[in-house]
Amino acid sequence: MALIVQKYGGSSVADATSIKRVAKRIAEAKRAGNDVVVVVSAMGDTTDELIDLANQITPLPPSREMDILLTAGERISMSLLAMAIANLGVEAQSFTGQQAGVITDTAHGKARIIDVTPSRIRATLDDGSVAIVAGFQGVTQHTNDVTTLGRGGSDTTAVALAAALDADVCEIYTDVDGVFSADPRIVPTARKLDRISYDEMLEMAASGAKVLVLRCVEYARRYGVPVHVRSSFSGHTGTLVTNSPAEGPEGEGQMEQPIIAGVAHDRSEAKVTVVGVPDVPGKAARIFHVVAASGANIDMIVQNVSAAATGRTDISFTLPQSDGAAAITALTEQQGEIGFASLQYDDAIGKLSLIGAGMKSHPGVSAKLFEALSDAGINIEMISTSEIRISVVTRAESLDDAVRAVHTAFELDSTEDEAVVYGGTGR
Amino acid sequence: MALIVQKYGGSSVADATSIKRVAKRIAEAKRAGNDVVVVVSAMGDTTDELIDLANQITPLPPSREMDILLTAGERISMSLLAMAIANLGVEAQSFTGQQAGVITDTAHGKARIIDVTPSRIRATLDDGSVAIVAGFQGVTQHTNDVTTLGRGGSDTTAVALAAALDADVCEIYTDVDGVFSADPRIVPTARKLDRISYDEMLEMAASGAKVLVLRCVEYARRYGVPVHVRSSFSGHTGTLVTNSPAEGPEGEGQMEQPIIAGVAHDRSEAKVTVVGVPDVPGKAARIFHVVAASGANIDMIVQNVSAAATGRTDISFTLPQSDGAAAITALTEQQGEIGFASLQYDDAIGKLSLIGAGMKSHPGVSAKLFEALSDAGINIEMISTSEIRISVVTRAESLDDAVRAVHTAFELDSTEDEAVVYGGTGR
Repeated sequence: MALIVQKYGGSSVADATSIKRVAKRIAEAKRAGNDVVVVVSAMGDTTDELIDLANQITPLPPSREMDILLTAGERISMSLLAMAIANLGVEAQSFTGQQAGVITDTAHGKARIIDVTPSRIRATLDDGSVAIVAGFQGVTQHTNDVTTLGRGGSDTTAVALAAALDADVCEIYTDVDGVFSADPRIVPTARKLDRISYDEMLEMAASGAKVLVLRCVEYARRYGVPVHVRSSFSGHTGTLVTNSPAEGPEGEGQMEQPIIAGVAHDRSEAKVTVVGVPDVPGKAARIFHVVAASGANIDMIVQNVSAAATGRTDISFTLPQSDGAAAITALTEQQGEIGFASLQYDDAIGKLSLIGAGMKSHPGVSAKLFEALSDAGINIEMISTSEIRISVVTRAESLDDAVRAVHTAFELDSTEDEAVVYGGTGR
Repeated sequence: MALIVQKYGGSSVADATSIKRVAKRIAEAKRAGNDVVVVVSAMGDTTDELIDLANQITPLPPSREMDILLTAGERISMSLLAMAIANLGVEAQSFTGQQAGVITDTAHGKARIIDVTPSRIRATLDDGSVAIVAGFQGVTQHTNDVTTLGRGGSDTTAVALAAALDADVCEIYTDVDGVFSADPRIVPTARKLDRISYDEMLEMAASGAKVLVLRCVEYARRYGVPVHVRSSFSGHTGTLVTNSPAEGPEGEGQMEQPIIAGVAHDRSEAKVTVVGVPDVPGKAARIFHVVAASGANIDMIVQNVSAAATGRTDISFTLPQSDGAAAITALTEQQGEIGFASLQYDDAIGKLSLIGAGMKSHPGVSAKLFEALSDAGINIEMISTSEIRISVVTRAESLDDAVRAVHTAFELDSTEDEAVVYGGTGR
């Protein structure tokens, strides 16, 4: 008997039929003797429909009211799911973020969890009932105002509840079978990983893998919550995220630590080049200060060697495309003071990241990566590395080929008899 | 400067356009220097859509979960309305029933308000902001569970908040111009009443007038809250419900108290006749005990004079058609013990009620009523009276004619120059 926190996303509860299927799975877990807490997102497109309604009213909805509006979505899914479970003869009660004790700061729309006091959830479990909890939402400490946690908020709710309840596992049900060695839509031979470490998963999430958001993995690592990413459509075992690194293609028999967990890719960044920056101390710092003040998150940075004749240099950096306009505006306003010649903005780039805890102790990983890309005729525009990650920027149109070439070069491709079902609906 | 509580029903906030129109009216009231609290229902058909969703999951949804589901509706309308008001440059914040301090008992689906502690609403008004409050919902005292108040719940929320805040008036915005001397769909010459007393309004509501529910009027009378029933579509003054009785057609110049406020009708009842009841003491009491135990609300009762030869009598009573099946089943089960011969069930009846505080001091009202019906060739099947009401049962198909005949006989028809706009959408 274990205490299990399960989280179901919007596509898993998109309609009455899906809700009934999920209810059956929950009832089975309960009947198997476990204590079960379920965190649920809003049904399918509900959130988008509510945002659309708000946009019909005003282009600038106050964020406090937006949060009240959006939390209607989980209210609907959580009560319907509780009804569906009760209909199977298993006791179930649903709870709002407030009732579940999810306390947040007051940053409406992107609140951070500051405490979880799940006394009511604990009491519900002690009564032998399944507890359904609204994901994505909390309540402010002093004013009892409703907040939402922003992107990936329901995953974070689940991990936070699992930590507060000291759960044995937090199961994140999604529309894919787990974490893959690459995106199976790009690499059909991608392998589902049986396990991956928090650190590797953090780098994967930060590098564009969409299966778990960064903050959820950070929370799980901080509190040591084992996270099991698995499909709500199939019965397969998924990927276990813990302190243990990924296993190589040969699996459990292998004694040595494998090198690579997977290849992530990201098409959401853009490259800004500041051309003709005076090559004097403090100019680069000034540029990145201006960009940071515009609210942009800088990722990779490259500075060209100064052309001795001109005393000027070019500085390139990448940032999310969504931050691009603000950064360009901010830099243009400061052009006179900084003294650069011009700006270039390029959003046709792609980023490939190779991630693996094992690369720490294995020299030659970057050489092998560059060789694989070179063999595939793909040009590298920027490079950055961490202890367990190497990232390169390529042309956007070369990215898919790059991912496939690297996946093959590091022998990550699955063999036929370990073929993987990619269970996604594409949502 | 006054403290005004305004209530808008679902048809007044059915879509973005309606919400913006309502927001404009609220902003005007605020800009005129008033403190404004707004109680709002769910948008248009939202509640029906949510009920439909629940029915797709289970035929017997647990009532606690049903309440959580349904309250999603007000969450959507209240936040959108607050956004729309803010968009007009007027500060507005929305609050759930819980945040507004609406405390109820634990009867999910039909909770009664046991206390209203609107400290947060008061603070919001003191900050110069409009407070939007979710109608129809409250929270249980000890467990913080969400409850709904049942039919007419939003009107009741508005009156309860007005009482707790000691508001100057509670404005109930609806899709008609006020309370009419009869249903304008049946009597095109029906007059809008400028005022009506709580007692008269109670009898109207109990007799089938749908503009306000009974419990809302009861609440208003108990706490002396002036209620202004008016249209959210037109700018007209509506009907003021206070301690003062209705005025007659000639209006303010009239010194003497008018006799009749209006004619109500009701097509929702059925007549049960228990045939051949042994005419011995205790049999009638036994019958009504059995019917009451089935959950049915008995309205009118008629007992025929006993036929001396047989020692048996017939007893007829009316009750809501929705209670009919349960009452018939309960009586049939007890047929042997009570000893009646048979049961007749007739749901083709209509009830007409003449209501007016003035009839207390005016003899001859019933005679005039019976004469008007007789002149129109309409047969009376049952009669019941209170101090300020006379009700008669007719055939259902004669009811409209009966209402028109009585309306005319008591000189309630409007003259052309006081013609009334019936602003309803029929919803």
